Amino acid sequence: MITHISPLGSMDLLSQLEVDMLKRTASSDLYRLFRNCSLAVLNSGSQTDSSKELLDRFESFDINVLRRERGVKLELVNPPEEAFVDGRIIRSLQANLFAVLRDILFVNAQLSTAGRYQDLDTGSSVYLTNLVFSILRNARTLHLDEDPNMVVCWGGHSINEIEYQYAHNVGNQLGLRELNICTGCGPGAMEAPMKGAAVGHAKQRYKNSRFIGMTEPSIIAAEPPNPLVNELVIMPDIEKRLEAFVRIAHGIIIFPGGVGTAEELLYLLGILMDPANSDQVLPLILTGPKESANYFTVLDAFIRETLGDEAQKHYTIIIDDPIEVARQLKRAMPLVKENRRNSGDAYSFNWSIRIAPDLQLPFEPSHENMANLNLHPNQPPEQLAAALRRAFSGIVAGNVKEVGIRAIEKHGRFKLHGDPQLMKKMDSLLQGFVAQHRMKLPGTAYVPCYEICS
Amino acid sequence: MITHISPLGSMDLLSQLEVDMLKRTASSDLYRLFRNCSLAVLNSGSQTDSSKELLDRFESFDINVLRRERGVKLELVNPPEEAFVDGRIIRSLQANLFAVLRDILFVNAQLSTAGRYQDLDTGSSVYLTNLVFSILRNARTLHLDEDPNMVVCWGGHSINEIEYQYAHNVGNQLGLRELNICTGCGPGAMEAPMKGAAVGHAKQRYKNSRFIGMTEPSIIAAEPPNPLVNELVIMPDIEKRLEAFVRIAHGIIIFPGGVGTAEELLYLLGILMDPANSDQVLPLILTGPKESANYFTVLDAFIRETLGDEAQKHYTIIIDDPIEVARQLKRAMPLVKENRRNSGDAYSFNWSIRIAPDLQLPFEPSHENMANLNLHPNQPPEQLAAALRRAFSGIVAGNVKEVGIRAIEKHGRFKLHGDPQLMKKMDSLLQGFVAQHRMKLPGTAYVPCYEICS
Amino acid sequence: MITHISPLGSMDLLSQLEVDMLKRTASSDLYRLFRNCSLAVLNSGSQTDSSKELLDRFESFDINVLRRERGVKLELVNPPEEAFVDGRIIRSLQANLFAVLRDILFVNAQLSTAGRYQDLDTGSSVYLTNLVFSILRNARTLHLDEDPNMVVCWGGHSINEIEYQYAHNVGNQLGLRELNICTGCGPGAMEAPMKGAAVGHAKQRYKNSRFIGMTEPSIIAAEPPNPLVNELVIMPDIEKRLEAFVRIAHGIIIFPGGVGTAEELLYLLGILMDPANSDQVLPLILTGPKESANYFTVLDAFIRETLGDEAQKHYTIIIDDPIEVARQLKRAMPLVKENRRNSGDAYSFNWSIRIAPDLQLPFEPSHENMANLNLHPNQPPEQLAAALRRAFSGIVAGNVKEVGIRAIEKHGRFKLHGDPQLMKKMDSLLQGFVAQHRMKLPGTAYVPCYEICS
Amino acid sequence: MITHISPLGSMDLLSQLEVDMLKRTASSDLYRLFRNCSLAVLNSGSQTDSSKELLDRFESFDINVLRRERGVKLELVNPPEEAFVDGRIIRSLQANLFAVLRDILFVNAQLSTAGRYQDLDTGSSVYLTNLVFSILRNARTLHLDEDPNMVVCWGGHSINEIEYQYAHNVGNQLGLRELNICTGCGPGAMEAPMKGAAVGHAKQRYKNSRFIGMTEPSIIAAEPPNPLVNELVIMPDIEKRLEAFVRIAHGIIIFPGGVGTAEELLYLLGILMDPANSDQVLPLILTGPKESANYFTVLDAFIRETLGDEAQKHYTIIIDDPIEVARQLKRAMPLVKENRRNSGDAYSFNWSIRIAPDLQLPFEPSHENMANLNLHPNQPPEQLAAALRRAFSGIVAGNVKEVGIRAIEKHGRFKLHGDPQLMKKMDSLLQGFVAQHRMKLPGTAYVPCYEICS
Repeated sequence: MITHISPLGSMDLLSQLEVDMLKRTASSDLYRLFRNCSLAVLNSGSQTDSSKELLDRFESFDINVLRRERGVKLELVNPPEEAFVDGRIIRSLQANLFAVLRDILFVNAQLSTAGRYQDLDTGSSVYLTNLVFSILRNARTLHLDEDPNMVVCWGGHSINEIEYQYAHNVGNQLGLRELNICTGCGPGAMEAPMKGAAVGHAKQRYKNSRFIGMTEPSIIAAEPPNPLVNELVIMPDIEKRLEAFVRIAHGIIIFPGGVGTAEELLYLLGILMDPANSDQVLPLILTGPKESANYFTVLDAFIRETLGDEAQKHYTIIIDDPIEVARQLKRAMPLVKENRRNSGDAYSFNWSIRIAPDLQLPFEPSHENMANLNLHPNQPPEQLAAALRRAFSGIVAGNVKEVGIRAIEKHGRFKLHGDPQLMKKMDSLLQGFVAQHRMKLPGTAYVPCYEICS
Repeated sequence: MITHISPLGSMDLLSQLEVDMLKRTASSDLYRLFRNCSLAVLNSGSQTDSSKELLDRFESFDINVLRRERGVKLELVNPPEEAFVDGRIIRSLQANLFAVLRDILFVNAQLSTAGRYQDLDTGSSVYLTNLVFSILRNARTLHLDEDPNMVVCWGGHSINEIEYQYAHNVGNQLGLRELNICTGCGPGAMEAPMKGAAVGHAKQRYKNSRFIGMTEPSIIAAEPPNPLVNELVIMPDIEKRLEAFVRIAHGIIIFPGGVGTAEELLYLLGILMDPANSDQVLPLILTGPKESANYFTVLDAFIRETLGDEAQKHYTIIIDDPIEVARQLKRAMPLVKENRRNSGDAYSFNWSIRIAPDLQLPFEPSHENMANLNLHPNQPPEQLAAALRRAFSGIVAGNVKEVGIRAIEKHGRFKLHGDPQLMKKMDSLLQGFVAQHRMKLPGTAYVPCYEICS
Repeated sequence: MITHISPLGSMDLLSQLEVDMLKRTASSDLYRLFRNCSLAVLNSGSQTDSSKELLDRFESFDINVLRRERGVKLELVNPPEEAFVDGRIIRSLQANLFAVLRDILFVNAQLSTAGRYQDLDTGSSVYLTNLVFSILRNARTLHLDEDPNMVVCWGGHSINEIEYQYAHNVGNQLGLRELNICTGCGPGAMEAPMKGAAVGHAKQRYKNSRFIGMTEPSIIAAEPPNPLVNELVIMPDIEKRLEAFVRIAHGIIIFPGGVGTAEELLYLLGILMDPANSDQVLPLILTGPKESANYFTVLDAFIRETLGDEAQKHYTIIIDDPIEVARQLKRAMPLVKENRRNSGDAYSFNWSIRIAPDLQLPFEPSHENMANLNLHPNQPPEQLAAALRRAFSGIVAGNVKEVGIRAIEKHGRFKLHGDPQLMKKMDSLLQGFVAQHRMKLPGTAYVPCYEICS
Repeated sequence: MITHISPLGSMDLLSQLEVDMLKRTASSDLYRLFRNCSLAVLNSGSQTDSSKELLDRFESFDINVLRRERGVKLELVNPPEEAFVDGRIIRSLQANLFAVLRDILFVNAQLSTAGRYQDLDTGSSVYLTNLVFSILRNARTLHLDEDPNMVVCWGGHSINEIEYQYAHNVGNQLGLRELNICTGCGPGAMEAPMKGAAVGHAKQRYKNSRFIGMTEPSIIAAEPPNPLVNELVIMPDIEKRLEAFVRIAHGIIIFPGGVGTAEELLYLLGILMDPANSDQVLPLILTGPKESANYFTVLDAFIRETLGDEAQKHYTIIIDDPIEVARQLKRAMPLVKENRRNSGDAYSFNWSIRIAPDLQLPFEPSHENMANLNLHPNQPPEQLAAALRRAFSGIVAGNVKEVGIRAIEKHGRFKLHGDPQLMKKMDSLLQGFVAQHRMKLPGTAYVPCYEICS
């Protein structure tokens, strides 16, 4: 089956050179990336945990860019049937397909001209932040005329029914207060608040509903954008995606999730506890239904014990009270606005929040990198937070990710140079997650994949 | 508590005379009507079956029209708290409040000038249809630039969970096909399709979502508009409301409901079987989940047995297949369009469909009126359908409505002049509804409140 | 030649009854009015001083209202060719045609239901003002969301080239300050400020350009709307038109004109000098190029001498300075706004300004009415202004209007009961206008058509 | 005087790097370019023939880019007073200022990354055309949803009153037919058609008025954008500007002008006579008032005699008939549309028309380049047209441009290798222009600055 799709929303005009770049034959990598992200979009709403499965199932899928008299068209060969209603593509998928095209071309052009500011190291903080900004601007994500109203919601993509309903209720209350939502764009805690907010917006006849889905190529297939996402942005990698979240957020909610969610909280604390950010106003709320209260109790205890009571200042835990969550965020918006105006910063993009290089750059959990982590309390807490996040990331990889498990098999357990007390607390946190079925383990028991060499 | 509400959507400018008319002191009846309908709107979404309860609960509620430099404002005294979010009225309620104001003033002006076309009997068909048209035009309900796409959904307002979910699914499929919805504007089968369609529209990025709620003063309090209604119209009485449904419909769906729903089907058959309407194209689909199949089986059998197999041509029964329902309606739209064009009729208002005086005028189920019904098969089926609808209406009143029960107590059972066979079928139909818990009876057993005097 | 015209802007939906009312056969008077106003609109931009000539030239013109599937259409038979470009009607004329239809139907409906408010005399001030309001509201002329910005421009429709260019320059300066224009909608001083403002608006990228043309059936043919008019309103008669001007104005400019312009100034002074209006803020500027300075010198002297120096407070004369004119009006707008807010009056319609019955009701210059005028200084100046306006109106009729000349021939000169001094001043004012070629006389010399019976 | 200007229309968000690039201190050349183009925009509407004069007059003018919470602002130091009305900048100038910022930043980024497509020579035709496309796309000049309607108007910027009025009338007729206008954006024949079209558009209530001004840094100061330009584009140099004109044109009008206008016609003939363009549909009309008929008679004769009668097929001369000009262009639009659809080309950008390298690349009229021109008839006419254009350009430089006159003084007359007959014809054409006062000569008599070395 072959269908031709017209542009919707963006990227309607391509030059001959751009069309050529995306040809199957021309630039194999770029084409591959474009094809796979497009396939993921066409699978919006379908439930799968595995990109591989998706890619295998639609092996015969193909996509071509055609130039036509009213601009570009996309030719889809053997696309997933669910993307169509009576033979016509669902328009949110149509728009998101062209968002994929837009971001892939733009990022490619940016990266291929990386050397353009001769005096800039492409690994430098300035360069990275400018790149994140440029991608968001090109996607028209940064709206100048809007007052602060963007709530970033984080949380697991495979939460249970009660947590889903709770996140839906929170979304409804946010929507009734005319707040917009930005999430990782997949299902679960990334979909529920958008669904709830859509109803809230409808009741308020709010026309500027923004449901930003911020994803990146390596996860888009496993977590395809839910169909409510009306602004899809594809960042080039996980660190730039995290940075984009932080810089466009006017408030952040963390719903219960798995280990990833805990990692994200450590990432945020690494930023918020940075003394350079002491003047920032960025409300952070951890919330869930009463059935999930334990998740936050455990997490909260861990953070206080490792990073000190000071850490607690940066977040609020609200259990089972969607109205209170929404109210606190709504009330914070004028403060965010005032703070930005005072510092001369943009409402739509937080230039001034500092994200330390530790957090801005990718971390590869090799044995060497793990051994070099400083996990002692004798350092500023924001640095400890960043180090913990990395340790965390490595341990999870060693326990459940294929590449990590294999590395452990080959080289033995990670040697960590850390404080034994601190490691013990991490152990018990992870065991708690296992007990709550928030971490899938290949075998049955949780066995630490590291040892302390104090 | 006193709040001032600005206009939204309509009726923002009033003359001094109009403001005076709505003053509490001035014209008590009009003020009462306005106050009670407004209160009902402010209770949108609340669950109650009884207008009385609602009115009692908010006895201290008061509403005043104020003139201000940017037009009219409404002053609300002691309004229901649920209508507000953090002290600000929910905008869909705000808009609907002004729709109430608009329609009450307009209908009042129309009725008070009824004698304006001197040669027109105000009970004449021409006059009534023009009145329905004028109210809808004044409410800006008739959109000239739209192709046929309005699906009227009927069904009970207190359906069960499975039926609700089914109606939601049908709505979703209608929404995915960019069809709009018009219902009686209350909860249950009047809300579910709108909710579903809202999600479908969002997926299609469809911006012209129309969710018309068509109500009238005597039921608005018992069935307050659900919050998705974005066009509220208040017709002066039940017959004009039914006529409005039929004239703006491009297709009709009947979901399972109570006895009222069966009555509505008889009303429609009274129209569709009229030979004057033989050229009309107006698809009518009866649908429900498989769990509710029985409702339609029974109804269908009754209709075939009383009105003949011919009657069946005018509707299609589809069980448990939302996609098929939506597909059939979508496919019918070009036929409706062509039919209107061929007959030179408006897309937005079906002038040419004939509604016989029997159906256009109110029926009061007095003993005399009941005795005068012709319930014999020896007449055109559309007239039998109209007569059956009235008998039906009277019997239900005699069984469950306060005024009916009292009339029976006082004057004895209704004497009906009808065919015994036919009456028997009606008995069994009603008993079926009782068995399905679709008719609440004051006592336990169903006892006919009439006798046949063949 | 026969053409069908689709609706543009308004009045797209008519009921069957309304269509019937406008049929040629049905209601001859209403049809005639509709046909002649439509013909005038189709002659927009053509230069003629005589309605009769226009009507004669297009005797075969005919117009019919047709109902179609997307609403009403107008069928034009033998319309003026100049209304079309390559066979397609010019869209501003198309829109104005439907404005004619709208206002004629609405006014007809209003007048035919005049008795609707039983306790209201249809000649009462309250009734008349409500009627003016209702017509403007129905024409959507009253915009709630706009701050005061409407400048009413008065002046002759057959001014010279220098005066035209001056009015154009004033318009340009008003446009650069984002002010809108309302005029009598014909050529000359009614067109020039709109043309100028259009360029000013374009430079300011101002999108809400409003060029209101306020006309009435008896003059529309002699002064057809100029093509820049984008909101045409047809008031039922000259007095309601004048009232409409005053109630929607946020400022008024008087350009040089003929005698009519002087009359209009007297009308305004009759209002502004009314003690009931002492709190009103309504800037009034008399302006022209230096070549026309004499017109205002003479007028100003006449007013001071007859109504006293007090009268001068109500207007400002600015000679040859378009920027200053625009600046003064722009600066006055916040004061107008504040004044309305303080008095609780609407920005879009000045309810509170008092227009005395003398000014609100038509004046017929019969010998009897003229004889009854009180033209003595021994009365409040606003009453003298009103009386002078009427005397003025009668004398002009006696001198140049066919009906007046014939009345004088038949009954002799008007007998006026007035102060001889005052009459003398009026004589010399009129003679001045003759000398300036601002009053066309049938013969050569100006001979007063009245005598004083002090 | 210092003023801060907010963004309008475009370029509202800048990164820190971009702001830094435009700092006075940072990159002197780029800042200079930005400052001078901005100054030219602020002088819109002022009459001057000399950039130097303008730049001298506002020596103290300065412009700085500031970052603010709602995006960028421009700080203007000592800007021309005429750009303001009562202290507020005129919005069309405001918008055009930001267009300057947008194009200068974009072109700079493009040029600095010229090597980005490694296999592309930056002088190659493909590269140049892609650059022209990218600049226009970035300026949002290419509208996909529009049918062909863009008329490019060429002609002198200092034409006489009669020619100005004529171009105004043509513009009015184009506007009445809802055609848009693109010109070189200065005064004279570049302003008149826009002014006329603005009135035509207003009569047609046409809301999508597009008045594109296409300029480049070296002429913007001498021909500042007229205030009707609502889309300003600044191309990097004259050849790209010409290419942009040709690729966005759906029809071209040439009004009388000076020698430059004749050169432009030769440029067009060089393209249209190219056999590769034999399938192109691009109507070209030469038109002027009857008083200017001679200009076209002389030009037409020259072309026929040098390029053959074939050349005449590519243009139509219409004298003194604005309606016919507009009608022919309007009628051609469906043909242009069909032609683009048949060739699969975009409506908004003519990718397929071939512009030979001779025409795409700049020509510097050095003695060597002039000597190398092939001015013999023994070559394809399109090549002769291109060579003639260059010879023309050089001779004009040698006669009237400072740099050319000096070169002639230094090196003697240009040696041309050409056909004597042909050169003679060129002589007489130029003498004709001198006689018509269309070429300003420093002395009195026209003396050829070249000799033929056949």
